[in-house]
Amino acid sequence: MKENIVKVGIVQQACSSDREVSIATSIEAIKACKQQGAELVILQELHTSPYFCQTENTEVFDLAKPIPGEDTELFSKVAKENNVVLVTSLFERRAAGLYHNTAVVFEKDGSTAGKYRKMHIPDDPAYYEKFYFTPGDLGFEPIQTSVGKLGVLVCWDQWYPEAARLMALKGADILIYPTAIGWDAAEPKEEQLRQNEAWKLVQRGHAVANGLPLVSVNRTGFEADPSGVTKGIPFWGDSFICGPQGEILLQAPQDVAFTGVAQVSLSRSEEVRRIWPFLRDRRIEAYHGLTKRYLE
Amino acid sequence: MKENIVKVGIVQQACSSDREVSIATSIEAIKACKQQGAELVILQELHTSPYFCQTENTEVFDLAKPIPGEDTELFSKVAKENNVVLVTSLFERRAAGLYHNTAVVFEKDGSTAGKYRKMHIPDDPAYYEKFYFTPGDLGFEPIQTSVGKLGVLVCWDQWYPEAARLMALKGADILIYPTAIGWDAAEPKEEQLRQNEAWKLVQRGHAVANGLPLVSVNRTGFEADPSGVTKGIPFWGDSFICGPQGEILLQAPQDVAFTGVAQVSLSRSEEVRRIWPFLRDRRIEAYHGLTKRYLE
Repeated sequence: MKENIVKVGIVQQACSSDREVSIATSIEAIKACKQQGAELVILQELHTSPYFCQTENTEVFDLAKPIPGEDTELFSKVAKENNVVLVTSLFERRAAGLYHNTAVVFEKDGSTAGKYRKMHIPDDPAYYEKFYFTPGDLGFEPIQTSVGKLGVLVCWDQWYPEAARLMALKGADILIYPTAIGWDAAEPKEEQLRQNEAWKLVQRGHAVANGLPLVSVNRTGFEADPSGVTKGIPFWGDSFICGPQGEILLQAPQDVAFTGVAQVSLSRSEEVRRIWPFLRDRRIEAYHGLTKRYLE
Repeated sequence: MKENIVKVGIVQQACSSDREVSIATSIEAIKACKQQGAELVILQELHTSPYFCQTENTEVFDLAKPIPGEDTELFSKVAKENNVVLVTSLFERRAAGLYHNTAVVFEKDGSTAGKYRKMHIPDDPAYYEKFYFTPGDLGFEPIQTSVGKLGVLVCWDQWYPEAARLMALKGADILIYPTAIGWDAAEPKEEQLRQNEAWKLVQRGHAVANGLPLVSVNRTGFEADPSGVTKGIPFWGDSFICGPQGEILLQAPQDVAFTGVAQVSLSRSEEVRRIWPFLRDRRIEAYHGLTKRYLE
């Protein structure tokens, strides 16, 4: 079996309310990844701005851009200049009153490999995403690139085994989650620890259940609540890459920006799935309840 | 919100080829759990015998018993004597040439609360279960008991997010996995560590994804391969109970028998699911692919 290693770079950053600064920070980090040999670079969720969903404010929709448009032109150029496959996470203006949280993947030559519109949309205090984002309508389709078939999902999707499984069943070689998650500063420390650990566990669990490597890229830094209602969000960083047994290959810190590259074997999945052939034994005739809201 | 705590006991044991010894060991441990206040006690997979699936041998079918039958009469009595809800894992003879790996749950009064026939059946070198067990035909149905609705699954099921989710959608209060898993003694140490960690990760991930506590009870001790083909299985113990954020509540050691009791809050799930309401946002209209073998 021929080994297939991809060098994967991740960019965990703190975002500025100055768009130009946030973008410049991403570009510098992409270059740093390239210098470390990265062929695939993954940015965090909504990396061109602070996480604007802490309040519901109609003026925020000004940040959204059409796809293709200003943002995709810019990152297409960055992908081409660095000769990397680039996973971005953008605020898409599709029409007046119709916006999505959309990951766009660029090929090494700057062409668009594909896009994914976030399917699962959260809505919790300080994460008012249902106000901003229409749930995705492109389904769970991996994006074919020159480095492999990328199962790109976004943030809240990371809690859903269904999303990871569907990407695996469609032949994804790797699961990828740009994300933006942090603590409620008002929560006690032990609850904060449980939440952070739960976030890692569920994603590493998807890697295991599907025999796939997984990349999760989260933002870091504190962002105040513009409405002053909450104490703001300390984003918890902790971006990581794990292999198909959930084993950690690269671990970012929590409190500071981080750029790093790991060697990820896409052929290791073949070995792992031969030992633990979960796909062989799925009881698909007994799974119809999964398409129901609840079964009581 | 009224707190609902259940004291859950687990019995991790090494099994003897002398059936009477294996059963006596279980009974002693159930009594010890009761003395520590347990209302619910969970035994490991196929606790009345060594793990007989290391070889394919037709004489092994002699171990199977009808349900109801000798085994259920015995454990019904044990449940009643100890006034506990008891989760057992039995080799069921349903008809000549038709056998199942079946968990039977007894009420505190010794009545049968319900049974679950293992749905996902593995088959790997030293785990020749497809020879012995017909895949279950009772679906994923939690079992109602006086201590809650038990989402009882068995061993190989533990790798399947679908099984855990279906139990959750049917109102399970807790996920329960009697299991029998160990290392291939021929594997290098680092692979052994990855496998053991993957096993914990995927189950704790199910707890998180479904906001449910989870109990996994594994056997311990070395069992030789009767055929002499492999080096036998050192079962890795490591039974555990975790809460709905995957947080460890009770952790057994790997190499020795263990009996222990933990306080498990069934009402904590209500709190956790209010913070992280994953069930609210499932994209059920986009999940039909989950009922397919593969999507390429």
